[in-house]
Amino acid sequence: MTSTNDLGQSDALAPVRLARIALTWLAEPGTWSVHRLVDAYGPIGALERLLAGDVPDRRVRTAVAARRAAGDPREVAAAALAHTERLGARLVVPEDDEWPAQVRDLELMTREGAGRVVDQETAPPLAIWVRGNHPLAEALNRAVAVVGARAATPYGDHVASGLGYGLAERDWTVVSGGAHGIDAAAHRGALNAGGLTVAVLACGVDRPYPAGNSSLFDRIVETGLLISEWMPGAEPLRHRFLVRNRLIAAATIGTVLVEAAARSGATQTLRRALAINRPAMVVPGPVTSAMSVGAHELLREHPAARLVTGLPHVLEEVGRIGADLAPLARAPRQPRDLLDDESAVVLEALPRRGVLDVDALAARAGLDLRNTLRKLALLEDLELVVRRDDGYALAVPSARPTTVR
Amino acid sequence: MTSTNDLGQSDALAPVRLARIALTWLAEPGTWSVHRLVDAYGPIGALERLLAGDVPDRRVRTAVAARRAAGDPREVAAAALAHTERLGARLVVPEDDEWPAQVRDLELMTREGAGRVVDQETAPPLAIWVRGNHPLAEALNRAVAVVGARAATPYGDHVASGLGYGLAERDWTVVSGGAHGIDAAAHRGALNAGGLTVAVLACGVDRPYPAGNSSLFDRIVETGLLISEWMPGAEPLRHRFLVRNRLIAAATIGTVLVEAAARSGATQTLRRALAINRPAMVVPGPVTSAMSVGAHELLREHPAARLVTGLPHVLEEVGRIGADLAPLARAPRQPRDLLDDESAVVLEALPRRGVLDVDALAARAGLDLRNTLRKLALLEDLELVVRRDDGYALAVPSARPTTVR
Repeated sequence: MTSTNDLGQSDALAPVRLARIALTWLAEPGTWSVHRLVDAYGPIGALERLLAGDVPDRRVRTAVAARRAAGDPREVAAAALAHTERLGARLVVPEDDEWPAQVRDLELMTREGAGRVVDQETAPPLAIWVRGNHPLAEALNRAVAVVGARAATPYGDHVASGLGYGLAERDWTVVSGGAHGIDAAAHRGALNAGGLTVAVLACGVDRPYPAGNSSLFDRIVETGLLISEWMPGAEPLRHRFLVRNRLIAAATIGTVLVEAAARSGATQTLRRALAINRPAMVVPGPVTSAMSVGAHELLREHPAARLVTGLPHVLEEVGRIGADLAPLARAPRQPRDLLDDESAVVLEALPRRGVLDVDALAARAGLDLRNTLRKLALLEDLELVVRRDDGYALAVPSARPTTVR
Repeated sequence: MTSTNDLGQSDALAPVRLARIALTWLAEPGTWSVHRLVDAYGPIGALERLLAGDVPDRRVRTAVAARRAAGDPREVAAAALAHTERLGARLVVPEDDEWPAQVRDLELMTREGAGRVVDQETAPPLAIWVRGNHPLAEALNRAVAVVGARAATPYGDHVASGLGYGLAERDWTVVSGGAHGIDAAAHRGALNAGGLTVAVLACGVDRPYPAGNSSLFDRIVETGLLISEWMPGAEPLRHRFLVRNRLIAAATIGTVLVEAAARSGATQTLRRALAINRPAMVVPGPVTSAMSVGAHELLREHPAARLVTGLPHVLEEVGRIGADLAPLARAPRQPRDLLDDESAVVLEALPRRGVLDVDALAARAGLDLRNTLRKLALLEDLELVVRRDDGYALAVPSARPTTVR
């Protein structure tokens, strides 16, 4: 059996985690050229190339050079991972079972609908820091985003907390950005219903922003999750909110916008949902309110944006997805979920990288040689392992995670 | 020269007016079978057939029989016309120059969009009673309807009066139903801007309903128009409001709905606008307000219903129609508008029905024979008159009025 860290995560993934942290530190999350490098060479290979300056994107080369002057990426990553564990947080990577596979749909984002936001950093996340006990993929498997203005009106607060409450009551996870106003109202509504809520931050999970919501964040950590693509200590820089918004849209089945000023950040979250064909719902408001201008703009500009006036309409939209159309990527249902115990043990016994001979494998798995070979044949059929001259290795996962549609 | 009545209307049309009043009295306005009879035989011929029981629609036959037991239709019509004149009102018929030709578009009404309202009486009006000095067609040539809930909220009142004011300021006639709430606010806004406003009633113009708006109606009559398809004395029966609503939609370039409860009469006006492809605009409101439920319903159900948040959006919709698309029927630009005075006199001298020989015609027109013949040749070229063996007759107007598109 492989050993695990204090959080129950497999130690075998430590090198991958460190590489992804280093990549996050060297380039901002969402950077397309880095995402493509990782796709081609894996996180460790991508890091090597990035450090060697072997990346065509000049902007990224410049950023990497500047960062390296400030410290050694591998040391920074090691310190960050240790700090993460001390915080009681964890780093979830695409190689983990609890990775929410649906965020990969960001690759489908088109210029249409997203408008200028597509020029922002929009690639899928490299890694996600998590505070809270719930498995991430499970928490986001049945999730709706409720977002809106920081300077919400009492009307918006009322509507958002009502939606948060109602969704949570019906076992939907309520996802938002942890900001003042609509976000906080949605989180609070979900908490008051005893439901699950996830705050997606644009800064480190150790210092959730804004500080004024700290008691709210404390409540969220207790029963829900605080998550972020930035390492602990990261500042909530302005452009990070826009990058963060794409994760809110991609992590959920649909996004509801409650109040938004003209062209505000909250409207961007909805535009990103539209750009990846997720249900984008908008609550109208008084035309006399500046806090509804952005909402009405969206309804006028985007025929796909759906006017909703309350929980029944939202449930209709997301329920339809679940029941009939199911166009969304869900948490991956991996073949390993179907394995018998002994096959699972054999699979666990294989190293993440490299080849192990059958004798050593049987010893690590605690099984006899004949049984080990029988299970390896099964795993080979399932394309989970490959036979080499000198033993067996884990199969390289395909570029896209297997998703149940 | 033909003589005119006290209101400057041609006496030659008196038989037509009387026939149309009798038809209105015998069957409710908007009745399709009566409309088709008039199309086929003219109002006088249609009345004869109706009185002879020569109409396939059993429901209409029954209604006519019941009415006839209550009085002689021709006597009722004569009394109504006299009463109309005593009131200082007038009856405008399709044969008049001031008839708003665009109401004929009601013939295009489809089941799609209108939903169940299509089963109501929706044929174009037979005649319109008018109080106020402005020529009807001219007043409605550039008109927008603003309608909504009687039990309007202060929000709705504010929005409706603002729209009424802004439209009137930009020389748009504001049309509404004269009801409490949104209708009254729209009329008042237009009046306060010194603009033209038209109240379309579901009862006689002598007793505009509701009485609580009587000072508003007085103000409207001074500078605008009170109009109705029902004769003076007619009661505002419940179903008449639905029939009336189609005229509001058909008489205007577009309809704006400000507030409406679920499935209310005000939403029906917008559904009728949609059914004849007129711009149908809806002002959203707080989702917490029962008075916006109908508005939001429409926006969700009808992709063609356009969300508008204020005057700029409304002007964009109706301006687009005026400037680029111009899909709407406008007031008829009849060839007779282009005639010189003597030709017009000759045309006026012809009887509405039957043939007049040239000598009698010259005498009635007060012109010499040669001049009369010259003008008749011109009128024949314009297809306004036809030559018969024994003289000249008015050409039968084509089924649809000539409209400038």
